[in-house]
Amino acid sequence: MDVNQARLRSDLEATAEFGAVPSPAGRGRTVLTGTDADRRAREFFCERLRDAGLTVRTDAVGTIVGRWCPDSADPDAPAVATGSHLDSVPEGGIFDGPLGVYAGLEAVRTLQEAGVEPARPIDVVSFTEEEGQRFGGGLIGSGVAVGELSVEEALAIEDADGVPLGDALADIGFRGDGRIDAGEWDSWLEVHIEQSERLTDAGAQVGIVSSIVGLTRCHVEIRGEADHAGTTSMTTRADALAAAGEFLLDVEAAPAARTDRNETAVATVGRLNVSPNAPNVVAGAVDLTVDVRDVDYGTIEALTDAARESLTRLERERPVETSLDHAWDRRPVEMSPRLRAVVREAGEAAGVNSLDLHSGAGHDTMHVGSVTDAALLFAPSEDGISHNPREWTDWADCAAVTQVLARSLATLTNS
Amino acid sequence: MDVNQARLRSDLEATAEFGAVPSPAGRGRTVLTGTDADRRAREFFCERLRDAGLTVRTDAVGTIVGRWCPDSADPDAPAVATGSHLDSVPEGGIFDGPLGVYAGLEAVRTLQEAGVEPARPIDVVSFTEEEGQRFGGGLIGSGVAVGELSVEEALAIEDADGVPLGDALADIGFRGDGRIDAGEWDSWLEVHIEQSERLTDAGAQVGIVSSIVGLTRCHVEIRGEADHAGTTSMTTRADALAAAGEFLLDVEAAPAARTDRNETAVATVGRLNVSPNAPNVVAGAVDLTVDVRDVDYGTIEALTDAARESLTRLERERPVETSLDHAWDRRPVEMSPRLRAVVREAGEAAGVNSLDLHSGAGHDTMHVGSVTDAALLFAPSEDGISHNPREWTDWADCAAVTQVLARSLATLTNS
Repeated sequence: MDVNQARLRSDLEATAEFGAVPSPAGRGRTVLTGTDADRRAREFFCERLRDAGLTVRTDAVGTIVGRWCPDSADPDAPAVATGSHLDSVPEGGIFDGPLGVYAGLEAVRTLQEAGVEPARPIDVVSFTEEEGQRFGGGLIGSGVAVGELSVEEALAIEDADGVPLGDALADIGFRGDGRIDAGEWDSWLEVHIEQSERLTDAGAQVGIVSSIVGLTRCHVEIRGEADHAGTTSMTTRADALAAAGEFLLDVEAAPAARTDRNETAVATVGRLNVSPNAPNVVAGAVDLTVDVRDVDYGTIEALTDAARESLTRLERERPVETSLDHAWDRRPVEMSPRLRAVVREAGEAAGVNSLDLHSGAGHDTMHVGSVTDAALLFAPSEDGISHNPREWTDWADCAAVTQVLARSLATLTNS
Repeated sequence: MDVNQARLRSDLEATAEFGAVPSPAGRGRTVLTGTDADRRAREFFCERLRDAGLTVRTDAVGTIVGRWCPDSADPDAPAVATGSHLDSVPEGGIFDGPLGVYAGLEAVRTLQEAGVEPARPIDVVSFTEEEGQRFGGGLIGSGVAVGELSVEEALAIEDADGVPLGDALADIGFRGDGRIDAGEWDSWLEVHIEQSERLTDAGAQVGIVSSIVGLTRCHVEIRGEADHAGTTSMTTRADALAAAGEFLLDVEAAPAARTDRNETAVATVGRLNVSPNAPNVVAGAVDLTVDVRDVDYGTIEALTDAARESLTRLERERPVETSLDHAWDRRPVEMSPRLRAVVREAGEAAGVNSLDLHSGAGHDTMHVGSVTDAALLFAPSEDGISHNPREWTDWADCAAVTQVLARSLATLTNS
């Protein structure tokens, strides 16, 4: 049973052209949900699914499923599902998402060519709006598939210009019918790039995830007083941005203070907006997001508390007012021991060196793992870089993880 | 000789309606150059000038001059000029600019009603784009009037959308002909709000400025590495925004370290933009402006050096690259001793309590003072607040400074 590396690469390179961002440093793409780039990426995927003889279905929130159900399979048996997403962050990389989608398709083609006769259907899936760059906080397609979000709620989520997701999907012809129900799946396997350097550091080609970190997202506001930058003396100003400077450093320093968890815990201010944001006006207000993650929920709570304490201190020491709004959070998710064992055996059978590790990113598997047995397989990321045109995974590593996936699917569809 | 406070107030309140920003905290306005609000403010001003019998001229960069030249005046004698600007920062106040423009007009109307017969013409001026919120760094009209900027250079300055100033002025019907030459003026007096609390602290109604602070504006870039906020451990990330946090605090702390100048020196980061500015992406780059001011140029240089040293330290201690680009600067400007004496005597004659002080803001007088004798008169600002809807000056204080201006003009037009 051999994966066709050239065919997998060809699919990924074709997908990289949609929303391509020229970059001297690498190969970037911007594929936001409901844009023309998204439409083209989806259309190409559907075409490739059909070429492989899969039956394609698009649900009401645009999640695409290609089903392989040959005569050997019981069409009513719970399917084994695999996939990921096709959207990207602005100026993101070409592997984050598409690798999992096309590894799934390539694994099915490999089983077909090896003459494997599955007893269950295999579903190859692309979830809508994983990244949350245009609509909401992300993971929308998988959120609907596990029932955490209703179809109606999802379709009503608006982008920054007030366009609802439903309209954006209809615009590109990918607002389908019904709802993919992940609870009906026997099992779910997602292949994704690691976005970190643990695999390359360990010389492993495939990562087998033990648990996915939990995540808390907070919205913070710091309000001072907008005033003239030339006439307001340093001692009388209420500078919201200078206050934010202290907060940024407090958030950055907090994980290191949790000595028991400092290898996995992270806290990030990635978005910060200043008002009125003029060179000659002391900043009147700053709003920003804090993103806190760890495999241990208690640590997440402790880091969120540390951010809250930093704001309390700022209010005490500076003439500012602050607020912290707990926007959403998600508890850490354990991967299925049954599937991890299947994947580990598949790796050994394929002669691929694997490593157990945790996942710092959520991925759609975080959702799917709450309703069915789930596994998450990582491919190595060069220098650990992701969400960036420099994101890179060797083609041989893409093929290796796909090989492990194909063997795992073969086992699971006949068990 | 009595100023008509009600008439002055009526002009200022009418002007406050153009670009009005409803605010529970006060009365704001947004009047950016070349917008509809700007057009309406200019048209109203021209109408009021003509109502008072002044001859109106608009130069190529939109600076408006109303000339009062009765039979008593030698039309070829150098004029005494007074005025300010009508534009504002976004969500700015209603006095910053318009007070100086309408104090000038009201002073002329007061002289007319008192039967004063000037020997020289009096020019009432509104300069284009003082605030620099849409085009360039500000002070554009006065920059052209003193020859620091050519008409062609000024008209070619583009806004963020690539619209040149010339087109924006033509759009609102205020691209005139020729160039107002401030070097032809005998003298220049500008009335402005103080934007600080020294007058109210001292119980003075009028401030007589001794010198205007110099100003250095720098553009700073801090470049790290955009990366996934969940999968990049705290120890391997190159977070441009966390690095900027340190820089913000260094800039804020620098003036206090200059113990000899810490009452006048200020340093501000008012604008800061993050890239890509997404909640789940470690910031790859931050660009920001540093605005440094003092009455002593050596101190300005020392504070700019301190900013540079902060960046050097960041490069040493963090995996970031930085740059500091000296965008422009202006040396401190001394006000004319002759005019200051005239204003002081006018204040005494009017029974108005005055205070000598420096100006932390540049104002068009910074330009005009480089080519002719100039004075700058301040009216008190409630709580020192400006560039904000809460900016406020009592109507009686507006009238008092106008009274001093009118008496000063009477003296200067007959000397």
